[in-house]
Order: sequence, then C-alpha cells, then structure tokens
Amino acid sequence: MSEAVETLDGWYAFHDFRTIDWASWKLAGKEVREQAIAELLSFTEQCQADQAQRKGSFGQYAVTGTKADFLWIHMRETVDELTELKLAFQKTLFADFTEPVYSYTSCVELSSYLAKPGVDVDTDPYLQSRLKPVLPDNKYVCFYPMNKRRAGEDNWYMLSRQERGEMMKNHGLIGRKYAGKVTQIITGSQGLDDWEWGVTLYSDDVLQFKKLVYEMRFDETSARFADFGPFYIGSNVTGHALQRMLTI
Amino acid sequence: MSEAVETLDGWYAFHDFRTIDWASWKLAGKEVREQAIAELLSFTEQCQADQAQRKGSFGQYAVTGTKADFLWIHMRETVDELTELKLAFQKTLFADFTEPVYSYTSCVELSSYLAKPGVDVDTDPYLQSRLKPVLPDNKYVCFYPMNKRRAGEDNWYMLSRQERGEMMKNHGLIGRKYAGKVTQIITGSQGLDDWEWGVTLYSDDVLQFKKLVYEMRFDETSARFADFGPFYIGSNVTGHALQRMLTI
Amino acid sequence: MSEAVETLDGWYAFHDFRTIDWASWKLAGKEVREQAIAELLSFTEQCQADQAQRKGSFGQYAVTGTKADFLWIHMRETVDELTELKLAFQKTLFADFTEPVYSYTSCVELSSYLAKPGVDVDTDPYLQSRLKPVLPDNKYVCFYPMNKRRAGEDNWYMLSRQERGEMMKNHGLIGRKYAGKVTQIITGSQGLDDWEWGVTLYSDDVLQFKKLVYEMRFDETSARFADFGPFYIGSNVTGHALQRMLTI
Amino acid sequence: MSEAVETLDGWYAFHDFRTIDWASWKLAGKEVREQAIAELLSFTEQCQADQAQRKGSFGQYAVTGTKADFLWIHMRETVDELTELKLAFQKTLFADFTEPVYSYTSCVELSSYLAKPGVDVDTDPYLQSRLKPVLPDNKYVCFYPMNKRRAGEDNWYMLSRQERGEMMKNHGLIGRKYAGKVTQIITGSQGLDDWEWGVTLYSDDVLQFKKLVYEMRFDETSARFADFGPFYIGSNVTGHALQRMLTI
Amino acid sequence: MSEAVETLDGWYAFHDFRTIDWASWKLAGKEVREQAIAELLSFTEQCQADQAQRKGSFGQYAVTGTKADFLWIHMRETVDELTELKLAFQKTLFADFTEPVYSYTSCVELSSYLAKPGVDVDTDPYLQSRLKPVLPDNKYVCFYPMNKRRAGEDNWYMLSRQERGEMMKNHGLIGRKYAGKVTQIITGSQGLDDWEWGVTLYSDDVLQFKKLVYEMRFDETSARFADFGPFYIGSNVTGHALQRMLTI
Repeated sequence: MSEAVETLDGWYAFHDFRTIDWASWKLAGKEVREQAIAELLSFTEQCQADQAQRKGSFGQYAVTGTKADFLWIHMRETVDELTELKLAFQKTLFADFTEPVYSYTSCVELSSYLAKPGVDVDTDPYLQSRLKPVLPDNKYVCFYPMNKRRAGEDNWYMLSRQERGEMMKNHGLIGRKYAGKVTQIITGSQGLDDWEWGVTLYSDDVLQFKKLVYEMRFDETSARFADFGPFYIGSNVTGHALQRMLTI
Repeated sequence: MSEAVETLDGWYAFHDFRTIDWASWKLAGKEVREQAIAELLSFTEQCQADQAQRKGSFGQYAVTGTKADFLWIHMRETVDELTELKLAFQKTLFADFTEPVYSYTSCVELSSYLAKPGVDVDTDPYLQSRLKPVLPDNKYVCFYPMNKRRAGEDNWYMLSRQERGEMMKNHGLIGRKYAGKVTQIITGSQGLDDWEWGVTLYSDDVLQFKKLVYEMRFDETSARFADFGPFYIGSNVTGHALQRMLTI
Repeated sequence: MSEAVETLDGWYAFHDFRTIDWASWKLAGKEVREQAIAELLSFTEQCQADQAQRKGSFGQYAVTGTKADFLWIHMRETVDELTELKLAFQKTLFADFTEPVYSYTSCVELSSYLAKPGVDVDTDPYLQSRLKPVLPDNKYVCFYPMNKRRAGEDNWYMLSRQERGEMMKNHGLIGRKYAGKVTQIITGSQGLDDWEWGVTLYSDDVLQFKKLVYEMRFDETSARFADFGPFYIGSNVTGHALQRMLTI
Repeated sequence: MSEAVETLDGWYAFHDFRTIDWASWKLAGKEVREQAIAELLSFTEQCQADQAQRKGSFGQYAVTGTKADFLWIHMRETVDELTELKLAFQKTLFADFTEPVYSYTSCVELSSYLAKPGVDVDTDPYLQSRLKPVLPDNKYVCFYPMNKRRAGEDNWYMLSRQERGEMMKNHGLIGRKYAGKVTQIITGSQGLDDWEWGVTLYSDDVLQFKKLVYEMRFDETSARFADFGPFYIGSNVTGHALQRMLTI
Repeated sequence: MSEAVETLDGWYAFHDFRTIDWASWKLAGKEVREQAIAELLSFTEQCQADQAQRKGSFGQYAVTGTKADFLWIHMRETVDELTELKLAFQKTLFADFTEPVYSYTSCVELSSYLAKPGVDVDTDPYLQSRLKPVLPDNKYVCFYPMNKRRAGEDNWYMLSRQERGEMMKNHGLIGRKYAGKVTQIITGSQGLDDWEWGVTLYSDDVLQFKKLVYEMRFDETSARFADFGPFYIGSNVTGHALQRMLTI
C-alpha cells in the first residue's frame, strides 16, 4: 500500500466566478445600477475589513474572455462562513445582475514536510502566514483545478512515497525559479469539490503564468501525472476600476 | 467468471440538490416569501414526523459553493414514496423559487459479510439500524457518487472474489481510523441511477472529509479501481437557520 | 474479419423523457390544468386503443428523481408513427407545460439464434409476441442505453463469433435467474440513436433491477465489454394516479 | 511517415438541426403561423429552384425523437452560400419559432482512387454527379459524424497507406451489399467542423440504416478505428406533410 | 527530465464567438437596429484605428453553421486591453442582441529556434511582425484549439527535446507546402485558457484548411500527439457585408 503524506490545512477557500447580465444591467437604469454598485461595494468593504482583522482574506478580479466577468475569492476559517458569504452576496441587489458560472471550494494545503520537528504548526508565524494567507495584491490572478492522474501505468497514487517525494522535489525546483515573479497558493479539495487541488497564481506579469505552466508541463510530475481542468485569468479590480467596469 | 458478493439492501434514498432563484425570491415580496417558507417548513416538519415514526429519514443542508444552494436527503421504504416526496415538494410554493440541479436515486447497501450465520437480517436490531438509518445530525454532510473502474488492467469486476475481499478489508481499515469522526452511509445505485454507488459522509469537522478521502485515495481500492463523480459539501440547516438563510 | 450475428427486428420504440414546468403549471390556473389533463388523457387513451388493436404498445411512467418527471414509451410498426406521436403530443395543451429532457429511438431486437430452422419469423406467434411486445404492466420500469466496448484489448467487435456466443450464453444464464421477477425488452439502436442498445426492464419489485444489473456487472460480457449510459427508473402511472400527480 | 490519400472535394454541406418552440408556435395565433409557414415555403422553394438549376442541393426532414424536430441539408459550391442560407433562414418569421440544436459543416469527399488516369475530374459526368450530388428523395435520412481513432495501438493515421487501403476495401464491400437499398454521401470535415467526417445515408427502409451500421461495426475499420458521434434519423418532408406537421 | 524549448511571446489574443438572438433583433424595430449597428461600427472602427496605429490587430468574421454567428479576434499588447475590449463591446447596444458562446484567450507564440544568435527579438523587424501580426485580410478564417497528448506511450512531454525537434521539423515541412495558400498564427494558452494552443488559419480558399488539416493528421506529430478541440470556420466581414447580414 502506498502511503499518504499528511497535509497541513489552513483556511477554506471559495472561488466564485460569475458573468454579468449586461442587457438587464443596462435596462435597470442609472439609479438602480448605482444602488447595486453601492451594495456590492458595501459587501466588498466588509470583506476587506474582515481581512484587516485577519478573519479571512478576499480578492476581486475582472476575468478575461467570456467564460466569466468576475472572480471573487474568499478565504475563511470555516466553510460555514463561505456559505454565509455566498448568501450575503446573493442578497445584494448587484447579485441579481449576475449569473454564477463556476465555483470552487477547497482548503489551503501545505505538505507536512514543511512542519519540522519542534515546530508548533498552530503558532509558527511562517506556517500560519501560509496557511492563512493574505491574498497578494498583484495585478493578475490565474486559477485552475487539477487531479493527479490514475491511468494504467501513470498512476500517481500507486507510486511509493519516495518516488512521489523525489518528483515533487524536482517539480518544486521549477516553481522556485519563478520566486519573486509568481506567488502560488495551493488548495486541496479532495472530499470538498470535483477536482483534487486548486492552484491560484499571482503575478504582476501575466506572461509568467504561461511560462510557469508551460515549463512545468515537461516535468514528469505534470507530464505523466497531472490532469488539468479549466484555466481562468483575470486582473485585480478595486473601487475605482470597478466603477469604471460597471458604468454604462 | 467473477462472483458477486450479495448485498443487503435497505431504504431507498433520494438526494435532491437545488439552487434558489434569488432574483425571483426578492421580487416575490415579503408576504409571498413568508408563505413559501411556511410551506417549506410544513413539508420538512412532515418529513421529520415521518422520521420520528421510523417511516423514513430526512436531512436538510445548505450547500457550499454555487453548484447548489440546498440538499434535501430523503430515505424511505419504497421508491414510490420518494417520487411522491418529489411531487409534494414541487407543489409547495417554495419550490417555484428553486431549480433542480442534480438528484441521485439509490438504496442503502451493506455487504452480506455483515450477515453472520444465524442472524435474521429482517429483525436484527444492528443491521436494521444500518439498513434503515436515522440520518446523523452532524454539522456537515458530504456527498459523491462513484464507480468501480473497468479499464484494461484495472478492472474491479474481473478480480476474484478473494482479491476484492482483501482490498475491501484494507479499505475498511482506513475507514475505521475515522470512527467517531466520520459516519458513512453507502448507497448502491446500479440499475437505479448513473453511478454505481453514492457515498454520504457526516461529520462535525468538515476537514475530516478531506482527510478521509485523501488518505483513501492512496489505497489500491481507490487508486486503481475508483472513478469519482462530483463532490458536494453542505451544513445541516434547521428551522431558525433556514429562516435566516432565506430572509432578505 | 469478425462476423455479425443477424438480428430479428420488430417494432420501433420511442422513449420520451420529460420534466414538468411546475411553476407554469400552477400559474396556469385550475381550468387550464383540467383542459391540459383532458388532452393528455385523450392522447394516452388513443395510444391504449391502438395497443388494444395491436397497432403498437404504450406505457406511461412517473420517473423518480429530478432528471425527469415522466417517461412515455411508444412502440410502433414504423418510425413515421413515432414521429407523428411526438408531434401529436406536442400539440396537446399539456405538452406546453413539459420540457423534453431525453429521448431514445430504437427497434425491438432479438438474436437470430431464436429463429430455428423451419420457423417463419413473420408468422410464428412466440417470435411475433416478442418482436411486437405488449409492454408489461408491472409496477416499475427501468431504462438505460449501452454500448459494447471497443477499447484496446477489450474490443467486443474484434472477438470471434464463437467467443461472443459463449459470453452471451453465460450472460443470458444470469438473466434467466430473474425469470418471473424481471422482464427485459432489448432494443437495438445502431444507426438510429447515440448508443447501440436500449434496455427496458419491468418488475413489480424495483430492487430486482439493482440485483440484476449488479450481478451482471461481474459477468465478463459486462465487466470487460459494456459501457453504460444514464439509468432511469419510474413507476407505472394510469388515469387516477396521473390525476393525483398533477393536482395542485 | 504515413501518407495521406488525396481526396476529391465537391460541394460544401450544411446540416441544420432545429427544434420547434411549440408553446410559442401555439401562442402566435393562426395568422402569424400561416405567415411563418408561407415564409418557410418561400425559403424552401428557392432552395429547390436553385437545385433545379444545379446551383446546389436541398433536403428537408422531420427528425424522430426530441433531439430535434427538423433537419435541413444544404449543399452549395461555396461556404459563403451556406452562411447566407443560414442567415436567410434566420430572417424568416418561421425561424423565430425554432431553436438551433446542432449543425454540421463539411464538404462532399471522394477518395482519389475513383479518379482513374486520363479522367478529368472537373468534367467527368460520373464524378461530377457524385461530387455535386442531388440529394436522394428517399423516404428516410440518417446522419452521424465520425472520427478515425488515434488511441494507442488503434491509430488509423499511423497505419501504412497499404494497410488503410485494404481495410477500406473490405469496408466498401459491406457497403456494396446495401447497393440499391442505402445511398451514402460522405462529407469530410477536417478543418471545418468538430468531427473528421459526416455520413448521410438515404433509404426507403429505415431498418437498412440499422443493418448497415450494425454489420459494419464488426469490420475492423469500424471495430478498431472508428469513433462515432450522435446519430439522427428523420423522414423526408415536403409541402403537404410540412403543413400537416405544423398545423395546430 | 524532458526540457522545454523556450518560446517567444507576442501580443495577447481574444477570440470572441457569439450568436445573434434573431427573434429579439427583429422585435427591436428598425430604429433600434440601426442604432445598434452604428454602435457596432463605431466599436470596430476604433479597433481598426488602433490597428492602423499598431496598437493591436482586429478581425471580424461571419461564422458558418449555427455554433456561432460572429467571431471577433482582438490582439493587443496586454490582457487588460482584451478585458477592456470585452467590456467596451458589452456596453454597445448591439451586444444586447448577442450571446457569447465561446471565447479563447492566448498569446502569439514563436519557437525560440527563430531567434538566431545576435538577433535582438525586441527590435528585429521580421520577428516583431510575426509576434505582433496584422491579421491577414484573406477571405476565410479557421480556428481550433489543441493539446499535445499525454496518454500512455503517446506522451509528447516525455519525449526528448531532440525527438520533439525532429517531429516538429517534419510537421513544419507540411505547413510549408501550403505557403502562399494558408497563413497560420499559433497562439499559446498554457496557463491562460483550457487548451494548450490555438491555431488560427487564413486563406482565400476554404478548401485549403481541409487539405492542410487532413494531410497533417497523418504526420506522427498530429497522429500520435495531438488532441483537437472544436473547429470553427468563417468569412471576413466588413462594413457593407455586415450591414447586409444584419438587415431584416
């Protein structure tokens, strides 16, 4: 029997992708739109206030392409808070002009290799900062879910712990080449959502997402053992830019 | 020819996933919403009354993410009752504000290994309590359907009965490590719905779902022989919390 | 080259799965609903009259789960009649409150092994009763489409005629164990619809569908050579029960 | 490197599958429906006039099952004409009561084996009649798209030209057994639409579609090397029958 | 470990496929339609003006079949501009009569083999003209996304750099046979969208798309190592033709 490496688990994450129903948005009239934007801003300000108090983390992004118009990422201590945030958003007037198109529920995950002997995970500042991350405020975000493959000879879960460890080490070396250019948050979703992991990348240069994903694909860990879901990219949107996006 | 292990079959189960049409819900006005909630409560109270009389079992959950807003699980002696429950729900005013997004029909299933010689399945209290379970009132629920794989060398149904038995035993050992943390209800759906089994997990700690599913994936039974459908998680919702969810 | 076993072909079959648009149904008002039900009853009475005259066969079922609310099965001498029945139904007022969700077009099929030398298929009463069956009036129905697999080593169509014959014989032995409990109608759909065969099962005990499908899955014919589509179950619904289903 | 057999290419083909929105059709009222039918008839008469002048070919079919209600097939010298026909149809009043559900763009294709030395493809009457076919007016039509498989050992495009030639020859022998019963038009769609080929069959006996497709499936060309898309069948519909179909 | 060949990356590309809601378009009335067309023309004129200033590139196409009615291709220096173009289009009145059906986000990509020693990619006129291309004004366009396959023995990313180089060279030789007939723009989308590459072809003869794609399929690079997404074809549409398309 292959042996699982224990994981360290942090905040729960909710990636919420939505499109705007533009025809309704225009029809609604200026007054209603202003009210809707005000309710959205009030919702996001609350999320930012919670972040400031380390109750969670929050990001708002304009998505490229027509797969979605917005992505909101919420991270919280419990899934209940994520469900409540979904409901709170739904109850805003703004939500009536949106259509959910994809969502992802997962949990920040670190390999237990990071927990060295003598380190108390619950108090260690470094581990805590990674398990309960403040979402970076880089210009661009990239999200995709993935599985480790289980197909004939290419079955990740049938490898020995040592084989997996060596592959992941090589895989990590590629990631490290992008240090300072790309920040990566891995969330695990086994038992929580349809794929096994979610990958959220941050960068000020969107091209680095392409370079990183491309280079990793030649690594055996990805080449033989990764199945990828849909990819989304977007850019960070705050108050002023949000107004501009939504002004008709 | 490989040989099937006979199964013990109990109550039929109906997992009913629905989203709320929030824009319509708001438009409906307070009075209509109150009437709709009253009809929902009346429906769920009847289900709970039936559960109290051991006519079936019932659970109501708020689903995380935008794949669904609600999950209702019904268990009953016959599939006719499940169809009638579907219709009874559809006829409530509340149902007009929901959209079905996924449903699953299955039947509680135990391996006949559990039926020891001399035990009368129909009267044995332990077996009866598992075949006609009262759905646990833990805080969280997790549901996913699955198949045993039939692909080239990884064909579960071509293994000998002994091989399958040994694998399932190892698989069960992992499950047992979560005793007291996770309660699991297996329902079979061959001939009833699109996947072969449904797995419904209960826990007061949602993280245990992730840990259990993750650890099991390294077990050969899952690693080589399991194909998984969509995963849903949610939290138990009763009267007061329900009102709060639906109040605009 | 592998050699096809000739098939005996009987009536064409149309499986018509639909959901009810319950919100519209309620909005329509009592009078319109009564008119709609009257038109549905008139349509189904005509189908039953045609069945009485051996012009075809007809069944009406309430489907479990939210994949569909109704299944109507029509069998007729020609596909033109099936298309006309679709149109005749569409023109009823009742149809305006339904949404088609799945349909299947196929043709009753028997293996030519059943046609013994000296038997005239066109007049033999036994063969005719199976090629142009009166749909059983058992309490429950189960429908699923399927393919014979063509994947690497598991390619049904590359087996010799003898190998296929032996497997089908073993497969049939399992089916025979369910004689008296489950009635099975096989329809072929190569060239007619997306899967190669449709399987329609009838029983007074829905559990027998599960037991039959489960047991067969361990048979090599299914284990290595069958790919299954969606499964639907439902229960026979006639006049009185239909009224009850549709009454608000 | 494997070597492609050159193809002879003729008219472009547009298969346009649509459903009728029956509720709207009824609501529209008799006068609007008559106007809509008149516009449809005017559109199809133009198509038939163009066919009479050998500018293209045209067929109109009532589809069985609820996957579609209508199939219109257009063949023309250029894809621009096909796009224009799509737009011309969209602009009719009738189109407002239809919903496109599937379409297929391809190009009549013959193997260059048919072009013997000394034959001028552009003027040879036989080749021209096959490259620019008048769609047969048989009672029934069948359409399905397909790919040649590229999977592990079963990779059509890695076979030598000779291997492919021999297989296609055997494959053709089966087709020839159906001469006089089934007419087949092959259209290629590599680079034009999602599958590699479209197969359109014509017959006065719909059962011949089933027999042909079934028998061919045992041929190695299909058994190991063909992947099939959806199958549609329908019956030829002209003026009078069309009126009858659409009359409420 | 296999080694990635570095890529040269140019403009970002946004392929925007949309259908027209014809029923609404007709209902809108002549005046509204004229206003909508005016807003569309104003949008496209701005895109063309930007192209004239080398700020980006732009193409507008009428798509064949009912998968889409329009394709707009935008190329720009940054993804932010692409998101802004999406929003600017959404805000036109014309957009209210369209429905997005597919979109693709990618980045013009050249193999670094093209960057010879001593050549400065950022200033070399030839490389710059290919990295920031003016979209050709040929009559026809073809678009499809694709992956390099990673399946068992057919795993592109597990080949050595040399093996890949030789295959790509052969692959390129086929492409070169179509020089002057087909212009090809390759865009990479790893990390940006669901497939690994997008291929946009241009030609004055749509048949060349079919011939090119067909011939390449026999090349080992495609035969064993390519998985293809949906294919779309369309024709270049400018002012006058656009008016004609949209006039009722």
